[in-house]
Amino acid sequence: MIGSDGTETQSEPAMSWREGYIAVDWGSTNRRAYSVDADGQLVAKIEDAKGVLTVGAGGFERAAAEIREALGDRAMLIAGMAGSNRGWREAPYVDCPADAQALSQAICWVEAGRVGIVPGVCQRGASADVMRGEEVQALGAVAAGLVPEDGLICHPGTHAKWIAMRDGRIDAFRTMMTGEVFAMLRDHSILAAQIGGKVSADDSFAAGVADALGGADLLASLFGIRARHLLGGGRNDARYASGLLIGNDVRTALPGRAAGGTVALVGAPALCALYSAALGQMGTVGHVIDGEAAFLAGIRRITEFL
Amino acid sequence: MIGSDGTETQSEPAMSWREGYIAVDWGSTNRRAYSVDADGQLVAKIEDAKGVLTVGAGGFERAAAEIREALGDRAMLIAGMAGSNRGWREAPYVDCPADAQALSQAICWVEAGRVGIVPGVCQRGASADVMRGEEVQALGAVAAGLVPEDGLICHPGTHAKWIAMRDGRIDAFRTMMTGEVFAMLRDHSILAAQIGGKVSADDSFAAGVADALGGADLLASLFGIRARHLLGGGRNDARYASGLLIGNDVRTALPGRAAGGTVALVGAPALCALYSAALGQMGTVGHVIDGEAAFLAGIRRITEFL
Repeated sequence: MIGSDGTETQSEPAMSWREGYIAVDWGSTNRRAYSVDADGQLVAKIEDAKGVLTVGAGGFERAAAEIREALGDRAMLIAGMAGSNRGWREAPYVDCPADAQALSQAICWVEAGRVGIVPGVCQRGASADVMRGEEVQALGAVAAGLVPEDGLICHPGTHAKWIAMRDGRIDAFRTMMTGEVFAMLRDHSILAAQIGGKVSADDSFAAGVADALGGADLLASLFGIRARHLLGGGRNDARYASGLLIGNDVRTALPGRAAGGTVALVGAPALCALYSAALGQMGTVGHVIDGEAAFLAGIRRITEFL
Repeated sequence: MIGSDGTETQSEPAMSWREGYIAVDWGSTNRRAYSVDADGQLVAKIEDAKGVLTVGAGGFERAAAEIREALGDRAMLIAGMAGSNRGWREAPYVDCPADAQALSQAICWVEAGRVGIVPGVCQRGASADVMRGEEVQALGAVAAGLVPEDGLICHPGTHAKWIAMRDGRIDAFRTMMTGEVFAMLRDHSILAAQIGGKVSADDSFAAGVADALGGADLLASLFGIRARHLLGGGRNDARYASGLLIGNDVRTALPGRAAGGTVALVGAPALCALYSAALGQMGTVGHVIDGEAAFLAGIRRITEFL
């Protein structure tokens, strides 16, 4: 194999990927490793809390060896925060629009042709944005036929990501601090005592979504939760606050979007259900897809270019 | 004096207010007490950190006695969080539109005609909102000629308040969690390491204001700060973030407002300077007024109805 700088060569390492491999989704707080056989079938998996922040600098060789001990001595392709500046090796971002071939060519090799880290994807300029991990799921979702080539994918969570596909490539995306801001408000703000409860898509949630879709300002509406509480509210504040934030997220990511479209949702089922409800309020269908299947299909697609 | 319910009477207590009084601006974290003589002149003041949260339930009698020991045994009118459910006595809110007479009639008397707490002002319904303390400054600012009878007043801070006056009354207002959200982002978010620096109205601040005025979504733009940092930004992140939040505040409070108007700013000088800069970017003049003078004029106006 010849590296992108033309200096690194190796005899036929690519063959090993056809014989099966280990795919690792290595995030900040968790890791999931999958053993895939020569037929592309998942044969074993492990999942634990040894995320990048727990493993820490210097711990990755050992942490990767543990994966091999559990799943066998196979070539390994890793995606997610393991490729960040707090991870094993920093894998520089690939610019949008990005496809599986571009990611494959930019793999950061820890062990040439044998242990690689898939780069994240970035957008530069006025809409500067970054992702690490979601790009594999997005490309895999299209490869597996879960999402159309020009589909829209939403990954709700701490940093919610909306990814617009075009001709099967990642064309553009937008990240919103939705989940993180909700957690800060719940844990640290004047609203803490009010919004700690369980959230579900009830009338209070719908009222928050409706206010957000109607253009209400987020920071004013949030103080309104406090005011309504003091004045005798009668509304579930946690659900209203969640509806406000998720509604703001949906409104922003789909500006001027005609009703009737579809958004593929990848994430925790309870959170996807809230996003589906919010999308439904604007006439858009939220369709939950299998994130694990998307990830495995994405890694498989990337190995096809090795 | 005959109370609003017609039952409470007392022989000529109102006279005492013409002989001078003590005005107290008693907030959550600080208190300021002013001794005013029969001519309405300020003769002495004290200021300390014995705010409502420090004094706590049961401590107010003693805390008020301290003020009298320092400033003399005079009738006392108190405004601010001392009238909240965490304060000395809860003084129920007066509804908008509100003037000095309405506040005066709704004073919560701790000692009849002698120690009173000025109520806050509220808005009910879809735009539920509350204030405690700013109403005295707003009415006083008009009474003192610092703000026109139909002026717009902004109190920047933890919970930034925008107050629209009409015919000298508080007609409507809007509170935004601008300062609190900035502090949470600085102390608890993924942006913490980036936005801790000193803020001033430089080019980075102006860029944040411009993005906000242009309609950028707050939660997406905030993540953009992280992304730009990872991609090699070259911008001052603390100032950009502050510009984004203050710009969002200004945009929301003045929707569709024609350029060329004036907003009176009451608050900490450094923060008022940032708001002036943001207002200036949309062609509106921010005019800093003296909050202490406004408060004293407001209390004086309220005593005129006793």
